[in-house]
Amino acid sequence: MLRDRIRFKPLMDKITDADAACVHIQNGTNVFISGFTAGYPKLIPQALVRRAEKGERFRINLFAGASTGDAVDGVLAEAGLVSWRRPYMSNRTMRNRINADEIRFKDDHLSRLSSQVRDGGWGRAHVAVVEAVAITRKGHLIPTMSVGNTPTYVREAEKIIIEISSEPPDLEGIHDIFIPEDPPYRMPIPIYRSGDRIGKPFIEMDPQKVTAILFSREEDSCAVFTEPDTVSRRIAEHILDFVEHEIKRDRMPSFLPWQSGVGDVANAVLSGFLENDFFHTIDIYSEVLQDAVLDLIDMGKVRAASGSAMTLSHKARTRFFNELYRYKEKIVLRPVEISNSPEVVRRLGVIAINTAIEVDIYGHVNSTHVMGSHLMNGIGGSGDFLRNGALSFVVTPSTAKGGKISAVVPMVSHVDHNEHSVDVIVTEHGLVDTRPLAPRQVAEAVIRKCAHPDYRDLLWDYYQRAVRGAGGHEPHILAEAFGFHERFMATGDMHSR
Amino acid sequence: MLRDRIRFKPLMDKITDADAACVHIQNGTNVFISGFTAGYPKLIPQALVRRAEKGERFRINLFAGASTGDAVDGVLAEAGLVSWRRPYMSNRTMRNRINADEIRFKDDHLSRLSSQVRDGGWGRAHVAVVEAVAITRKGHLIPTMSVGNTPTYVREAEKIIIEISSEPPDLEGIHDIFIPEDPPYRMPIPIYRSGDRIGKPFIEMDPQKVTAILFSREEDSCAVFTEPDTVSRRIAEHILDFVEHEIKRDRMPSFLPWQSGVGDVANAVLSGFLENDFFHTIDIYSEVLQDAVLDLIDMGKVRAASGSAMTLSHKARTRFFNELYRYKEKIVLRPVEISNSPEVVRRLGVIAINTAIEVDIYGHVNSTHVMGSHLMNGIGGSGDFLRNGALSFVVTPSTAKGGKISAVVPMVSHVDHNEHSVDVIVTEHGLVDTRPLAPRQVAEAVIRKCAHPDYRDLLWDYYQRAVRGAGGHEPHILAEAFGFHERFMATGDMHSR
Repeated sequence: MLRDRIRFKPLMDKITDADAACVHIQNGTNVFISGFTAGYPKLIPQALVRRAEKGERFRINLFAGASTGDAVDGVLAEAGLVSWRRPYMSNRTMRNRINADEIRFKDDHLSRLSSQVRDGGWGRAHVAVVEAVAITRKGHLIPTMSVGNTPTYVREAEKIIIEISSEPPDLEGIHDIFIPEDPPYRMPIPIYRSGDRIGKPFIEMDPQKVTAILFSREEDSCAVFTEPDTVSRRIAEHILDFVEHEIKRDRMPSFLPWQSGVGDVANAVLSGFLENDFFHTIDIYSEVLQDAVLDLIDMGKVRAASGSAMTLSHKARTRFFNELYRYKEKIVLRPVEISNSPEVVRRLGVIAINTAIEVDIYGHVNSTHVMGSHLMNGIGGSGDFLRNGALSFVVTPSTAKGGKISAVVPMVSHVDHNEHSVDVIVTEHGLVDTRPLAPRQVAEAVIRKCAHPDYRDLLWDYYQRAVRGAGGHEPHILAEAFGFHERFMATGDMHSR
Repeated sequence: MLRDRIRFKPLMDKITDADAACVHIQNGTNVFISGFTAGYPKLIPQALVRRAEKGERFRINLFAGASTGDAVDGVLAEAGLVSWRRPYMSNRTMRNRINADEIRFKDDHLSRLSSQVRDGGWGRAHVAVVEAVAITRKGHLIPTMSVGNTPTYVREAEKIIIEISSEPPDLEGIHDIFIPEDPPYRMPIPIYRSGDRIGKPFIEMDPQKVTAILFSREEDSCAVFTEPDTVSRRIAEHILDFVEHEIKRDRMPSFLPWQSGVGDVANAVLSGFLENDFFHTIDIYSEVLQDAVLDLIDMGKVRAASGSAMTLSHKARTRFFNELYRYKEKIVLRPVEISNSPEVVRRLGVIAINTAIEVDIYGHVNSTHVMGSHLMNGIGGSGDFLRNGALSFVVTPSTAKGGKISAVVPMVSHVDHNEHSVDVIVTEHGLVDTRPLAPRQVAEAVIRKCAHPDYRDLLWDYYQRAVRGAGGHEPHILAEAFGFHERFMATGDMHSR
């Protein structure tokens, strides 16, 4: 009985259905939703779409934790109901509308979001729509599979709509909710080890602000991870070999926690630990926890895994809920301003691994914009971790589109992380530790070790001409810096002919 | 008597002269020097040059806190004695040699340096050469006008050469030396207010490692600040008006501390407080403290001023030493890993103001490379402050070279700070708060408000064609993105003809 999940009885009279609840959302409403790859509300978006289908014209400003499922970003974008969207999204329909300037989108480092909302920088928080597994006896919220910015959204919202999910209520206890004071009154965030709990297992909420409670049987759309392919495996091997080597040379301590980004390659990197004998025990201090984390817990290799959300495949999800009591001993889900906190990431000395769309010969990284102009997903937490990690890896397969795109280019067409935030560049062909190298040495090594063999001559030719022409600390021929991209846009292939 | 400055008597027998001392520096030696705009050793570099003049051929790897004076970077570069240099420098001769690839140079966010050195990432610390006003009774060091990375260099060095400076020994007490533990054993850096002292007033040193002590009457070369011109004043006014407005609208608290970069414009911004009635009391949590800070202390406007170094004009320097007892009550000098600590900068909520070489219409910033290839000075601490500040300003006069260079360009030719680290862009013509804007809105506002009127049509034309052509989230025409730069390199003028 989902009714039992409402342990704070005065809220019983707020139970309603989605069509009634979404009256609180009108044209121009700022809607702050839970959700960070998972844990997003599902009923309200559908109800909004139904209203639109009946001919009502309205558009909302949609603020989330990060990406959500098709059930939110997809259907709302498709129906033309979104005026503004912040931050990070990964939905194809929404991406297309953003690139067509039909939806305004501003991207931010995820660690900075909540405090901006508390400052009022995102405008009034008209309505929060949050998914929860339960409301406590005192009227507080137990979130579902993500925390994201929900604690702040709930605190700042003028009205709150709650979707009680049928996810197991045993999720209670996995979350650790801590909202730091804002400057100038902030104190240290007291996390000293990945697994430290510093807050409460619920999101504090003023029940007076709750305007509607819905019961939901909808599930998060599950991630689909492909089995690590040869390329991902090679990338993972390069990273683990390198770190092992650094530890053995006494250049870094043995127990730094690991962060790995979102997606197949990131999952493959963590999967690399499964067959590795050197790393017996690891800490994870990351943003999104994926399937590989469960595998590693099952092997007994994880001391603690901290994140802001869990994105699991359907299979892993079943396993997770079946043995929740066991996984809860290892896993902590935190607000993203804590999981991604520069303060904590730097204190713990996180080993950060994030993927790129393209890197350039000097080590600058594009993670967001295809061919310089077109948004892919957003920067997410990559900047929080890469900039502050003790050791930062940027990984990418050396080519895309069946070899027609080189992921190593003379100059990236958009910079999200510059050379100073990137320590090590990795493709399936090899790895370059840029830390002891000057830019020209970086270029020579990246071309030789990371670029796909098919593109090495082209890159080398550019670099040599840049050295002889412009010269300087990071030689570039500005008129040709995007030659690879221009060629691709003209011919569909970065190779020259 | 400078001999009295050596209060630890066993070190008396290490007193020698520079020519004898510099025998510890040979071809390939890694030399780690004190100095951060000020407080660098002066005698050893001269002695090295004398050796070179006698025909000896050798090259050293030179690591400092940040920039030093001509007496170090200038003379050593001129004599061809530097093989590697890290980080930040601002000397013309050295810059030219770096751009000619005769000196290898790697730039880093200053907050990360010390821990990299402790990790061994910069190689063995063969010799530290440090300027000090005194050696304490227990054999510890009192630095001069900067702290920089000196505490770590002294701790890690195999040999230490000390130049006892004739600067007033009353500097004792102005420094606050704290070396954090490295991950994974780091604890919070316990600074809660700009003026908090968390360490010791001296640099701990193992006297056994001291191989030479020299007496020096050389002074730091003084900064020369020009009187704020109209452009700088306008920039300062825009910033102070904006912050006042934000505070009055209750969008930010009244007492956030200020950081302002190095140079004339940065000095002018702080000078802006002198004639401002709204800001009665300010905290400064910055990197380099310049003349304006003394002026503000004299007016009674400063509650505390924290930095890693002081760069004063000749006149301000005299004033500073004359009333040192008074300034010491307000000023704290810290290691740069503390002054620039992302943890502390974000906790305190610093208002960060840093200068740019150029900004682009979407708010990306180039602070280091002229025309994409040629190093100017380096990134310094700008990234530490811009990324982590509660409110980040990037400022630049709208043109350079008598109007022939526009500081607002379609795409910056090198990215040091991307759109996500930059909140507000300011030129003498106006200011754009990018925080509530999507990229296309940023472009329209920056062209209209920040660009010089002479360049607005050209920028607008590019932007409009990019919107109609590539489209997307940040429309660019890659083949033309550097058209302004190419025109300048071809004709000496960014205007089209």
